Amino acid sequence: MKAKLIFIGVIGGSKAAPPVAKLAEEVGREIARRGAVLVCGGLTGVMKAACKGAGREGGLTVGILPGDNREDANPYVKIPVVSGVGYARNVAVVKTSQAVIAIDGSYGTLTEIGYALQCGIPVIGLDTWSLSINGRAEDNIIPAKNAKDAVDKAMALVNNRK
Amino acid sequence: MKAKLIFIGVIGGSKAAPPVAKLAEEVGREIARRGAVLVCGGLTGVMKAACKGAGREGGLTVGILPGDNREDANPYVKIPVVSGVGYARNVAVVKTSQAVIAIDGSYGTLTEIGYALQCGIPVIGLDTWSLSINGRAEDNIIPAKNAKDAVDKAMALVNNRK
Amino acid sequence: MKAKLIFIGVIGGSKAAPPVAKLAEEVGREIARRGAVLVCGGLTGVMKAACKGAGREGGLTVGILPGDNREDANPYVKIPVVSGVGYARNVAVVKTSQAVIAIDGSYGTLTEIGYALQCGIPVIGLDTWSLSINGRAEDNIIPAKNAKDAVDKAMALVNNRK
Amino acid sequence: MKAKLIFIGVIGGSKAAPPVAKLAEEVGREIARRGAVLVCGGLTGVMKAACKGAGREGGLTVGILPGDNREDANPYVKIPVVSGVGYARNVAVVKTSQAVIAIDGSYGTLTEIGYALQCGIPVIGLDTWSLSINGRAEDNIIPAKNAKDAVDKAMALVNNRK
Repeated sequence: MKAKLIFIGVIGGSKAAPPVAKLAEEVGREIARRGAVLVCGGLTGVMKAACKGAGREGGLTVGILPGDNREDANPYVKIPVVSGVGYARNVAVVKTSQAVIAIDGSYGTLTEIGYALQCGIPVIGLDTWSLSINGRAEDNIIPAKNAKDAVDKAMALVNNRK
Repeated sequence: MKAKLIFIGVIGGSKAAPPVAKLAEEVGREIARRGAVLVCGGLTGVMKAACKGAGREGGLTVGILPGDNREDANPYVKIPVVSGVGYARNVAVVKTSQAVIAIDGSYGTLTEIGYALQCGIPVIGLDTWSLSINGRAEDNIIPAKNAKDAVDKAMALVNNRK
Repeated sequence: MKAKLIFIGVIGGSKAAPPVAKLAEEVGREIARRGAVLVCGGLTGVMKAACKGAGREGGLTVGILPGDNREDANPYVKIPVVSGVGYARNVAVVKTSQAVIAIDGSYGTLTEIGYALQCGIPVIGLDTWSLSINGRAEDNIIPAKNAKDAVDKAMALVNNRK
Repeated sequence: MKAKLIFIGVIGGSKAAPPVAKLAEEVGREIARRGAVLVCGGLTGVMKAACKGAGREGGLTVGILPGDNREDANPYVKIPVVSGVGYARNVAVVKTSQAVIAIDGSYGTLTEIGYALQCGIPVIGLDTWSLSINGRAEDNIIPAKNAKDAVDKAMALVNNRK
């Protein structure tokens, strides 16, 4: 049998300003260039831009949708997973990924960061949430300088675990 | 952009006697031969046999797992989706599929048949549950004679909807 | 501390013809008369009639809703649980109950019967689904003659397990 | 019919140092004194302490459990809801509440804060997460000085919405 595929998640809001979309598209491209599968929530904004980037490099994209309709998927999702469980699907986006890259971020992204850190799935951050509790900074989000750095870090973390 | 992929679900128990496993493997082969993606619950029994058949024909297989570990997937699953929601993932197995083929069947299969009929997703049955209520037979499960017939019927139903 | 409460589920369709609604209301009354808590899906039809019956006897009613709004609950639900996970909430309706009484039934009821049998939660049937597989009748659904008989059987099964 | 019940959520980690447990117990007491129902995740730590406090004042407590066993509930939960969907139950804890009080906090608490802010459910914070994104502080978490202040604020927000 062939080597197993690697799955990298991209999490971020369903609205993305142009520089955020550009960054997400770059992240998608970098994931596909390394032969990894891009996992995301399948909708618009950061998710759509990342899938578009991966698609341009011929990469495989999985979109785990909250609702009941496969038509909700952005056009760059190749494998739409129709969860039917609403935003509880954020759990599946995270657990299906071996590392996640958080870009910018909405409140939904915050839930995904929480689930990933809870499960021990590495989180690499690009201009995303900063967290602290009682004055102690949460330092388990690994900062990245740019798209390439984020994907390099994600791939290295996944490969080191195997 | 290329044509969208077609997704056919295979549902059945996690234990399969040899003739049931043989039937499931044939169904998997037939799905892959038509270029469709096989969707299932990712575990053993009918799910494993169907993925094995699809894999032998070079087909793509999606396994939507109930638990938290990608290692729970049978070795023929190419895209493991780690749902983390337990047997509520049966909803996702059904909704991700454009038609489902029920083979033999456990109580879990019964829940999947119920969800599919509720959503209007066609169910093709191979030696599976028969249902009636107050003496009226439930006739929305479409019977098939064999693996090829089941997949022919599933593909025809999906293509007619488009 | 006081004795623990007993939780009995009532499952059935969101539409109920008058005789079915009357039966469900009777079941609700009988549950409340025994001091047990009624668990259901919180919506209309069988669920509403059962909650109405329980309410008339001063009983406590839990409605586990599929959607995002507590206002979806029928007016006889005292404890609305807003699951947000769609019809995956059927799992919670079943698992929250120590025995379930199935009345008449839609496809959703079929999924709940499947989940209950899978988990080993007793199912008592009143004019509900009959199931068979490959000619063998599924005989794990316990038939009841009327509302009182159904609730007697449910309570006896729960009390015998303790 | 009688007035509808008010549901206040308490979210926090499953481990609680003594001062945190004391604070959670006070919050539980204050909720029960106002006649509101306490909603939580049903387990240990902050959840258990809050349920204990509510129970001492004769309040009603709902514990929405992640797993499959009602025995997982802490002994002060009166209504255990057995979700069976793992930590996707965090969605239900939040949506079942009309306001949530976050105490201290684990990564799970972070997911609940994210879901609540996403849905527009008010979050009152007691020594919990501070969030910022790209240098802008997230100011939608309403700070409270102590248990009484937190519950006063939660009740006022719920009553103003009606």
